[in-house]
Amino acid sequence: MDDKTIVALNRKAIAMGKLIIRMTTLAESGHPSSALALTHVVATLMFKQMRYDPKNPWNPASDRLVLSEGHAVPVIYAAYADLGGVFGKSKAEAKTLTPEFCDTLREIDSELDGHPNPNVGFHFFDAATGSLGQGLSAAAGLALAARLDGLDKRIYCIIGDGESREGQIWEAVDFLADHKLSAVTPIFNCNGQGQSDYTSKQQSPETIARKLEAYNLKAVIADGHDQAAIENALNETDLEGRPVAIVLRTQKGWGVSALKDKSNHGKPLTKDQMSAAIAELDVLEKKLPESDGVVLKPQLPTAKDCGCCCGTRAAEIPAALPPCDFDKILAGDSKLLEQLKKKGVATRRIYGIALRELGRANPNVVVLDADVSNSTFSNIFAKEFPNRYFECRIAEQNMLSVAGGLAAAGKIPFVSSFAKFLARAYDQIEMLTITGANVKICGSHAGISLGADGPSQMGVADVAFFRSFASAAACSTLIPADAVAAYNSVKLAAENPGMVYIRTMRPDVPVIYPEDQKFEIGGSCRVIQGDEVIFVSNGFTLHYIKDVVQALRKDGIDAGLVDAYSLPIRSKLIESLTADPGKVIVSVEDNYAGGLGSALAEMAAARRGAKVVCLVCNRIPKSGKTPEDVFAYCGLSRDAIIAAARKAIGK
Amino acid sequence: MDDKTIVALNRKAIAMGKLIIRMTTLAESGHPSSALALTHVVATLMFKQMRYDPKNPWNPASDRLVLSEGHAVPVIYAAYADLGGVFGKSKAEAKTLTPEFCDTLREIDSELDGHPNPNVGFHFFDAATGSLGQGLSAAAGLALAARLDGLDKRIYCIIGDGESREGQIWEAVDFLADHKLSAVTPIFNCNGQGQSDYTSKQQSPETIARKLEAYNLKAVIADGHDQAAIENALNETDLEGRPVAIVLRTQKGWGVSALKDKSNHGKPLTKDQMSAAIAELDVLEKKLPESDGVVLKPQLPTAKDCGCCCGTRAAEIPAALPPCDFDKILAGDSKLLEQLKKKGVATRRIYGIALRELGRANPNVVVLDADVSNSTFSNIFAKEFPNRYFECRIAEQNMLSVAGGLAAAGKIPFVSSFAKFLARAYDQIEMLTITGANVKICGSHAGISLGADGPSQMGVADVAFFRSFASAAACSTLIPADAVAAYNSVKLAAENPGMVYIRTMRPDVPVIYPEDQKFEIGGSCRVIQGDEVIFVSNGFTLHYIKDVVQALRKDGIDAGLVDAYSLPIRSKLIESLTADPGKVIVSVEDNYAGGLGSALAEMAAARRGAKVVCLVCNRIPKSGKTPEDVFAYCGLSRDAIIAAARKAIGK
Repeated sequence: MDDKTIVALNRKAIAMGKLIIRMTTLAESGHPSSALALTHVVATLMFKQMRYDPKNPWNPASDRLVLSEGHAVPVIYAAYADLGGVFGKSKAEAKTLTPEFCDTLREIDSELDGHPNPNVGFHFFDAATGSLGQGLSAAAGLALAARLDGLDKRIYCIIGDGESREGQIWEAVDFLADHKLSAVTPIFNCNGQGQSDYTSKQQSPETIARKLEAYNLKAVIADGHDQAAIENALNETDLEGRPVAIVLRTQKGWGVSALKDKSNHGKPLTKDQMSAAIAELDVLEKKLPESDGVVLKPQLPTAKDCGCCCGTRAAEIPAALPPCDFDKILAGDSKLLEQLKKKGVATRRIYGIALRELGRANPNVVVLDADVSNSTFSNIFAKEFPNRYFECRIAEQNMLSVAGGLAAAGKIPFVSSFAKFLARAYDQIEMLTITGANVKICGSHAGISLGADGPSQMGVADVAFFRSFASAAACSTLIPADAVAAYNSVKLAAENPGMVYIRTMRPDVPVIYPEDQKFEIGGSCRVIQGDEVIFVSNGFTLHYIKDVVQALRKDGIDAGLVDAYSLPIRSKLIESLTADPGKVIVSVEDNYAGGLGSALAEMAAARRGAKVVCLVCNRIPKSGKTPEDVFAYCGLSRDAIIAAARKAIGK
Repeated sequence: MDDKTIVALNRKAIAMGKLIIRMTTLAESGHPSSALALTHVVATLMFKQMRYDPKNPWNPASDRLVLSEGHAVPVIYAAYADLGGVFGKSKAEAKTLTPEFCDTLREIDSELDGHPNPNVGFHFFDAATGSLGQGLSAAAGLALAARLDGLDKRIYCIIGDGESREGQIWEAVDFLADHKLSAVTPIFNCNGQGQSDYTSKQQSPETIARKLEAYNLKAVIADGHDQAAIENALNETDLEGRPVAIVLRTQKGWGVSALKDKSNHGKPLTKDQMSAAIAELDVLEKKLPESDGVVLKPQLPTAKDCGCCCGTRAAEIPAALPPCDFDKILAGDSKLLEQLKKKGVATRRIYGIALRELGRANPNVVVLDADVSNSTFSNIFAKEFPNRYFECRIAEQNMLSVAGGLAAAGKIPFVSSFAKFLARAYDQIEMLTITGANVKICGSHAGISLGADGPSQMGVADVAFFRSFASAAACSTLIPADAVAAYNSVKLAAENPGMVYIRTMRPDVPVIYPEDQKFEIGGSCRVIQGDEVIFVSNGFTLHYIKDVVQALRKDGIDAGLVDAYSLPIRSKLIESLTADPGKVIVSVEDNYAGGLGSALAEMAAARRGAKVVCLVCNRIPKSGKTPEDVFAYCGLSRDAIIAAARKAIGK
């Protein structure tokens, strides 16, 4: 890099610094000190290094920048405003960012959210960040997608030093090494200051670099305020093909005395302080030599905007999964077909088979699993499509955020693990809802029917968690009770954009639906006619309580059974049942409170409608040899359910 | 170690192997191959190295063993049965483990759960494990407690190689280094096989050792089937005082051909295979020389069972927090006292102040935070009790599991971070409920009143998640609306054993309660009398909707307001309101579905009682300059709430 370019970049960094100060002071909140530490590296990246078109953030061939330490986002807005970058909810609503617009930072109708938020209209970003530690995984997902699409694309990811304490960062580093994702450049911003204190020595530049090398990456330490050093580091390669990570020594609050102390994390300047800070930056600017004639602009992307769905966030509705026809689908596995017909098959196994069919129908479908693919049966897909299957090992947080990166690049990721283990990625999952990511999640071995393995393996809070998002229309849940429903769950997940959670279970269950049964998001289905007391359930529990219904019927009680296989409920059947004050509904679930029963009760109570009795696990489960043992242990013996139903109808 | 001892330990390992095979075959489930890989190291630990009394697992001075890879638990049961170790729900119900009792593995009324589960009566363990990656953090918590209690105690922790992919393991290693917890010995079991495949090279013994050294631990690699090598490794120390970690090369399915292949994870042998396997182990045994005269027994604990609460899981009810008296409590901070009286103080700040008071009242109280102590205000405690405050840096998963270890040793940990960031530890939190850990969790900056920082910082699914556990009586939630309620939330949390979740918020809120107001778990309080439409809310939202209630009252509608500050609801007031078909209730929440509104609807619908309309965030929030902006954005403008209330009463 020639001297004049260095000067020009330094000028940009200072100009960005002023805008950072201004926008955060006007917003009366934000993290100017974190943003200032990054002005030089972001200037180098966005004005020179990256191959992208600020006028078209939708070009899938563009290099990408993931700001994992999302609170530093004003530094991006500042550079993008200088470049006249384009933003907006869609290409049709595209607008040009100006320095003046930055004054709207954090306003309710501004696209400039407090942290990176593509879904409100800032498509420079691929992932909502701000909950720390997740960006490098998203970057890895973007790189996997680029590899599948044959795009020569670099993905830069800026990570805070304090942030690198999050284990997920190191899950992502392992993943980069495993998958040889040298298209990703992790950039560690070591300013030595966290929010409440200096960072630990465990997160010093030297230790981070040593860790990176131990993880089989190449690590380069550089001065984060030296443009030439930054550029050299960005252009380092490794002869062995290892991904190269950069560790930058930076100064928090660079250029502004009032922001350099560690007590200033997340504190904007007052208006008086702002003037002093800008004057201070002016002095620095005046000390710089001239840079006349230097035109800074990013390089062009390596390919034109292909206009296809890759690189766009709103994936197209995929080619439909063929209708359910097990004779055809299982033609190659006569043993399984026979089992299906005779005693039934676990929903988790059909999940895997449906994934394979979907993989054949749609090349954008990709699958991720965390070392349990032979339990979730995602290995059926992996066997046929090894290039579209990504083994994430035992690191669920990274897996979910990688899926977000893949989805941002137009892929349709299906992610599976035990429902229980997915709980350690609930923050990541929530971040995906904020991004609006088109990610499908399968939690297998859900509920207490798992039996012998015990509570550490059972998903019992999952239904409440995923249903919670229903109020924001951010997630649908499907809980199939048989093979036909399971197959259609995958179909519905693929066809409906956004997050869908499929809950599968361990035990084999008989087929109850004809192959041409219609399923829909929010739907339900009457399984046994009966009107005196109506049981509502789903999944394995639906089978478990069939005996209960029959026992009551035998005793002259007109009991019925409805399969509410999808939440949030949009079913006319359930709407009419819950609205009717004459009805008595008993919901039975193999999980804790907050799921199906709550949904029914909310519907009924809003209209002074049906009586609804919610039966859920009433204690922490433990190991038991059979599902029946554990159901009984958790207050759900068939006798207890019968007693509750009888009490509800007063018989 | 002399040759005869080596032989004796090898004999034990083989005997344990036979028992492992037997118990898993009879249980028809379990992970014998994983357990077999550990027979030698567990024999060395439990028969020789550890200083503990198998007859008294409650002795707080005992060395501890945390089996992080919980699925290998049969190896522990086998050794403990050989030793005649004691187990049972309490000292009064103590029983001696026999090899025969191991036949009950995984039965519903057996204490031998499928994974370590102290809460069902196996107190050799301190933490329920099985969801991977969490044990080393628990071990760190045990070591911190031992240091506080002045106990010379070692904590061994066995971690799988595949498991070490979990980022939390490395958060824990960072934590060990930061806190110089050389009393912890992490033992990595590298058998090279995961569940679905061989482990990655990233988890090879060499790479793990290199990582450990990069993390500033000392790493020793040893042959995991060589007793002398194991013992040497266990007795390694470091001149610089670094914690010493051991990396063992092991053979999955050691000694049993049918279990050595990677396809055998989690598969018990059939009865036929069992006979062959035991015969194979018999042959190995016969090849061993004699070990006559060698008596293997663990060393004694370094101190006698003190009988105090330390080292026991059921902590004593702590010395009570003094009653709320802010004139006294804030005597040293007249500015804050004035603010409290004039405009009010944020609940999060009172949380910190109450923690300090509690710290003065009870020496067992400890506090943990993840680099946001100046936002959650746990720094107020830290300032006065630096030795009882543990800075966990930005690594929430480790923090929660460390808290579990502290609780297992009789401490009363209060853990805080932003409610949103705690979501990344929801799996760990669920494991704490399984353990029955006495851990108090504070999620600050909860709900959408956070405003400007945006959705990546807002806890909105937290209420549904924590309420879910209510059905299993495993967690209570407190959502205080003012300073008095916040102070009493800490009091209630300390006084009630088990998990309590306190939800605090960012904005300052006026005081509404007299200082002598009574609060209770599950309680509620009528704030504004009114009967035509009764609003139910809590936290910041309670203040937000006061205007709504007043506006309706001005318009001649007799609106009332109830503060339902605790879930699950046990309040007589709310019970009678929800049971009354004549009532109309409107709940308003600053979070997604599944919380307060669901609880009210469930109560009402179960009795065909009140009409309940639940208002919650109806879309994903974004940044907004004021809480009002974000409430309106999420469908909760005051006008929208008024309209919903009017609709509910048909006016």
